[in-house]
Amino acid sequence: MAELDPATLMKKQVGEAAAALVQSGTIVGLGTGSTAAFMIQALGDRLKSGDLKEIQGITTSFQGEVLARECGIPLTTLDVVNYIDLAIDGADEVDPNLNLIKGGGAAHFQEKLVEAYAKRFVVIVDSSKLVDKLNLNFLLPVEVVPKALHPVTKAIEKMGAKVTLRMGVKKAGPVVTDQGNLILDVKFPHGIEDPAELEKTLNNIPGVLENGLFVNMADLVLVGSVIDGQPTVREIKR
Amino acid sequence: MAELDPATLMKKQVGEAAAALVQSGTIVGLGTGSTAAFMIQALGDRLKSGDLKEIQGITTSFQGEVLARECGIPLTTLDVVNYIDLAIDGADEVDPNLNLIKGGGAAHFQEKLVEAYAKRFVVIVDSSKLVDKLNLNFLLPVEVVPKALHPVTKAIEKMGAKVTLRMGVKKAGPVVTDQGNLILDVKFPHGIEDPAELEKTLNNIPGVLENGLFVNMADLVLVGSVIDGQPTVREIKR
Repeated sequence: MAELDPATLMKKQVGEAAAALVQSGTIVGLGTGSTAAFMIQALGDRLKSGDLKEIQGITTSFQGEVLARECGIPLTTLDVVNYIDLAIDGADEVDPNLNLIKGGGAAHFQEKLVEAYAKRFVVIVDSSKLVDKLNLNFLLPVEVVPKALHPVTKAIEKMGAKVTLRMGVKKAGPVVTDQGNLILDVKFPHGIEDPAELEKTLNNIPGVLENGLFVNMADLVLVGSVIDGQPTVREIKR
Repeated sequence: MAELDPATLMKKQVGEAAAALVQSGTIVGLGTGSTAAFMIQALGDRLKSGDLKEIQGITTSFQGEVLARECGIPLTTLDVVNYIDLAIDGADEVDPNLNLIKGGGAAHFQEKLVEAYAKRFVVIVDSSKLVDKLNLNFLLPVEVVPKALHPVTKAIEKMGAKVTLRMGVKKAGPVVTDQGNLILDVKFPHGIEDPAELEKTLNNIPGVLENGLFVNMADLVLVGSVIDGQPTVREIKR
């Protein structure tokens, strides 16, 4: 196996640190994205080695489902379980109150569904994702039913934001989510002042399924950094 | 044509009274249900007689779309218009503040989408729909993405409500909406204290597309009654 560059090695270490929190016999929410992928692989390794036994995973995207199957993680669904012990996932931005923007991979609806349901939610990021204020750099993704695209766009523009329909790559036209919906990427010119209020206001616009604000959900953030060429992982607790 | 019974005649009169509010050259939101159907037919009659010219309708369900075409009403969509002049629709309950419960026909998502967008929203009901407090009799419909059925059910039950999955008639299994989602019918044991707050709280549960509370939307309610065997229509304004 080729040697990993420090940034990738750091992502891998963060993913492994999160996987180490998983206990045998528990139900685990499996996030989406490159750091979460390392976590899923690490869980698979722990199962194969016998270090971990009888976990059940609940995925948050097609991506996670395919990877979890490859890694030999038994899967279940929200239809049949009554709780999730621990969910682990990445984020696109993390503010000082541990509120998040997620949805760069257009998976934030299923992620929020699973993570809102988890007894404990651990976020895994590199230090570039830590921000003082949300939405100054990363756009806020909003998942919209196709029929409502035009009115929802106008409603959010009226709130003072710049709104862009996310376009596909290797796919003509817009990105379509795993649920068959569209993604608006939203930028408030001065960032987001009140994430809790904005989350509700956006979700109350007819046609919005879910937005990428995750407020008061994260219990622990594992942050990877590369310091003097060495990957390190530190914790931020609520 | 067979003579209509007083209750049906009253619905027809309410529908016609609403259709009479429509002016030539405007864009009209066309509701769903039996009273709205009379309104759509009355609009078609006004177009045929030449009394009304150059309106464009926007429907809120397959039902309305089929009927509007039959009645010769030109249709447009939310994709291409920038406003709706007037929307007209029925309701399942109307409280003294003109807040509504809608969704008995499982069309409340598209209805809210259109009606939230209208400059003026007129509600057409018979007097049995007027209530002191919402949800004491009529169940509150909540449209849910199928993947989220179980967690959303549990989340609403936690709020103290009784939750029932709406089952199909002439269709095995649950009712499926025009968007491919499911309907939960929700009953709060003491009715709904704060419709504005509950609307937002429900819409903020991951997996809820839209609920049937229409708060601060209705501008005018046309109420039909049968008094001494005679249908009458009166107005309640905001």
